[in-house]
Amino acid sequence: MRLLFDALGGDNAPVEIVKGAVLAAEEMNVDISFVGNKIEIEKVLKELNYDKEVSIINTTEKIENEEEPAYAIRKKKNSSTALGLKALKENNADAFISAGSTGALLAGGLFITKRIDNVKRAALPTELPSLSGKTLVIDSGANMDCDANLLLQFALMGKTYLESVKGLENPRVGLLNVGTEEGKGNALTKEAFTLLKNSNLNFVGNIEARDVTMGKCDLVVCDGFVGNILLKNTEGVAKFLMHTIQSEIKNADLSKETLLEVGTLFSKMSKKLDYKEVGGTILLGLKQVVVKAHGDSDSIAIKNAASAAVKALNNNIIETLERDFKENI
Amino acid sequence: MRLLFDALGGDNAPVEIVKGAVLAAEEMNVDISFVGNKIEIEKVLKELNYDKEVSIINTTEKIENEEEPAYAIRKKKNSSTALGLKALKENNADAFISAGSTGALLAGGLFITKRIDNVKRAALPTELPSLSGKTLVIDSGANMDCDANLLLQFALMGKTYLESVKGLENPRVGLLNVGTEEGKGNALTKEAFTLLKNSNLNFVGNIEARDVTMGKCDLVVCDGFVGNILLKNTEGVAKFLMHTIQSEIKNADLSKETLLEVGTLFSKMSKKLDYKEVGGTILLGLKQVVVKAHGDSDSIAIKNAASAAVKALNNNIIETLERDFKENI
Repeated sequence: MRLLFDALGGDNAPVEIVKGAVLAAEEMNVDISFVGNKIEIEKVLKELNYDKEVSIINTTEKIENEEEPAYAIRKKKNSSTALGLKALKENNADAFISAGSTGALLAGGLFITKRIDNVKRAALPTELPSLSGKTLVIDSGANMDCDANLLLQFALMGKTYLESVKGLENPRVGLLNVGTEEGKGNALTKEAFTLLKNSNLNFVGNIEARDVTMGKCDLVVCDGFVGNILLKNTEGVAKFLMHTIQSEIKNADLSKETLLEVGTLFSKMSKKLDYKEVGGTILLGLKQVVVKAHGDSDSIAIKNAASAAVKALNNNIIETLERDFKENI
Repeated sequence: MRLLFDALGGDNAPVEIVKGAVLAAEEMNVDISFVGNKIEIEKVLKELNYDKEVSIINTTEKIENEEEPAYAIRKKKNSSTALGLKALKENNADAFISAGSTGALLAGGLFITKRIDNVKRAALPTELPSLSGKTLVIDSGANMDCDANLLLQFALMGKTYLESVKGLENPRVGLLNVGTEEGKGNALTKEAFTLLKNSNLNFVGNIEARDVTMGKCDLVVCDGFVGNILLKNTEGVAKFLMHTIQSEIKNADLSKETLLEVGTLFSKMSKKLDYKEVGGTILLGLKQVVVKAHGDSDSIAIKNAASAAVKALNNNIIETLERDFKENI
């Protein structure tokens, strides 16, 4: 199994990317390869004393987060994103892992590696912390304006992702909505409710935003606009709480000992709420395994992203999705 | 100034409603009146030694939260909601305050007290805690499917609300969106951006969900579906944090003293995040002042709801909105 890493993508490229890839190679018995600045990559590999053969696609062209994704991916043919996805398509790698622009990765995925038959749009799942462990939100930001049929497709892809990558059998699927009763919501969710209810998914009905972190379902289905609001609000509320508690602590005049204990508690809590901790998420609906790692990924996050790719490949996620979308649509 | 209270609405009716009304009468020099079970109301008034004259519209019919609002308001003509709004329309009161079903209050507001000319839909503003104090979200759940022009109307109403009730001059208006740059978002927010930019509002551009609690604007504009998701997610994340910290504390084996200190901190923090604390919110766009208090309001929350009504009346919120919607639309 060969994993290809984007050594130009993300805030900590190339050092943390290369380190993470090497960790993956050591722990998971996979071949690693890179797309990026050959000289810099080899320098890091040397520092790490990694002496196995590594193939490198040399480039220094990068797509920035600010660029319009579809335009950038067409124009910057030598960008690490475009070259990486091309190598994937030509079977020079089994999975591509990038901490670069999500939009460019999605656009490139659609243009270069292409969608699975019958999949209308690729979707981005993201895990949120919850009382039951993790809850997967799909779509978390790739698709803004959606119809009900798209939401059903997201649910199908999310289900396969949870089964293949997370080992969760027959996950509980909830539709993000403003009330639990059938008939609640906007035109989109009302129609999606009917489609989900009539599907062979383990549909548990509408789920309110207050219950997402309560772990009432394993998979939360919504359009990418609402999913983005949900995720970023979770991040914002956690940040707000940290600010609030810090100022309360300042005013409270606590003992040194208590301060230390409280500090440890908060650092743990903060980690539990950080959806970046997860490492990587697979862009669903493409013909090959493309993993998006968070922009500020360190080596551990990159290794975790690689691990998600390995699990997906071992469990034949692409073949499963191809079969699902042949049969169910 | 006469305030009319719904003594059948909410979890703590009639006792806390009547107590809150009496507090308002004592503190704000207003006349109070009730719609509800006359015998019960008089019993509470007697217990409180309130001996001023109080007019009571006697009824025991109530609209439950589970009922379909528009249907219930038409069918239950003797419900406290319907009778209260009717009294308001007939100028037997200056404002109506209810902790009952939000949907019924909105439906009744539209059917009975009617909308201000040119206002297309009534909207529900809700305050969220933020680093700058409070941030108003409009619409927070009254209107599911919206067009861009509706979002502009919500912004105009929210601005007047903040100026009239909160004394905030020229509030900063943000459009809830998935990115800060112009051109981001779904079809609705892209179009709304243009309308807001060309309005005479103090429009500060798109605001991401992570920045709502950071206090980057005073007024967050969104459709009611998204607003509901934002609010309930804030509630859910706060709840999740409390659960998490409680279990961490259990495992941490802290000293008794630290436990006590931490407990106090959390109770303060919890209050800061509780959007129910605010008391009451005014249904915007109606021809009269209708205040929705939270379902589980206690006497203090009811008094705060009354205070919002008094401020709105003193600052001529209805006349201001009538003028705004004559000039701007």
